[in-house]
Amino acid sequence: MLITFEGIDGSGKSTQARMLEEHLRSEGRSVRLVREPGGPPLAECIRSLLLSHDVEISPFAELLLFSAARAQLVRETIRPALNAGSVVICDRFYDSTTAYQGAGRGLADPAWLDEFHKHVTDGLTPDRTYLIDVSVAVASGRRSGRDEDEADRMESGGENFFERVRAAYLHLAEREPARVLVLDGTLPVDVLHTMIVEDFVRLPNTK
Amino acid sequence: MLITFEGIDGSGKSTQARMLEEHLRSEGRSVRLVREPGGPPLAECIRSLLLSHDVEISPFAELLLFSAARAQLVRETIRPALNAGSVVICDRFYDSTTAYQGAGRGLADPAWLDEFHKHVTDGLTPDRTYLIDVSVAVASGRRSGRDEDEADRMESGGENFFERVRAAYLHLAEREPARVLVLDGTLPVDVLHTMIVEDFVRLPNTK
Repeated sequence: MLITFEGIDGSGKSTQARMLEEHLRSEGRSVRLVREPGGPPLAECIRSLLLSHDVEISPFAELLLFSAARAQLVRETIRPALNAGSVVICDRFYDSTTAYQGAGRGLADPAWLDEFHKHVTDGLTPDRTYLIDVSVAVASGRRSGRDEDEADRMESGGENFFERVRAAYLHLAEREPARVLVLDGTLPVDVLHTMIVEDFVRLPNTK
Repeated sequence: MLITFEGIDGSGKSTQARMLEEHLRSEGRSVRLVREPGGPPLAECIRSLLLSHDVEISPFAELLLFSAARAQLVRETIRPALNAGSVVICDRFYDSTTAYQGAGRGLADPAWLDEFHKHVTDGLTPDRTYLIDVSVAVASGRRSGRDEDEADRMESGGENFFERVRAAYLHLAEREPARVLVLDGTLPVDVLHTMIVEDFVRLPNTK
């Protein structure tokens, strides 16, 4: 099973991804948590490039770099883990590209991107996507408590940028209600975690 | 004007690209010669990644990395140079991806790749493409005279690989005869150069 977590920076999705991983591990399940961009050596190299402030990266090149990291992650890590029977949890997957590069940066029409993602992931789609939704103001307040080094290229988009990203996420959830579950990211962390676990055990492929 | 040179490794295309650059410069024209992958800092970083033997790169991730470097090259270098009135000469462009990753590595159908390239290059197509054609045996013999360091990932495909690449190039020339001119790469270097210059001055946009 492939489970993905999505949301704007500061939504709390990474915390929830880790909590689900720990929960499943405590139940004796084989789990693999990955974050995007990252994982295999190639993807980590690409991550360093994307986080750097020194190199000029056009929005479309950015889209392709995220996708190259994802293509490698799918082939080198996710597919083998799924084939070995693990639950794979991704902190971000292709919906992030649709929301951030597609809508946030105003690139490429969604229909072309959908088709493009299929090539990138070799047809792999998540069994469930948890979209942790918070307002841009809430997310911004949470991010401001973080280390300055984390305010990297990916997070330096401004308020209008994040409004477009959030709107794109919510639009995605409307388009794919069977896959994408929207959760209120302002709920207490433990309450959210319980909702996610309760949903997870009801998924069709959960053993 | 955008002029591209294509061919399998060892075809002599880089030599011809440089000779055309020098010829046009000697005539007082503004010329910009670029090689792929490379050019802007981002593209050079990607080039280093692609040339390394240490990092595993799946064929589709490779396709996306070449394309990311190209997207940046078009936006940061080629478009501005064309807008400034320069002739831009590219040693490899998107036809290389169609031939090497598409046909050589057996990836993606040509129709999807054609559409993909349009997004990558923001709709930019060469005014003329010189395809320097040699047999795989001839190219291999020329490459064996080179430094070992140059036998990088991109050139380490084996004979069948290069046969597929060459066939894809020739197929491209059949599909786009108005753009792609096939030249016999076994002709003497100076003869080839003269043929290219004579063709160049007859192109519609040549002042």
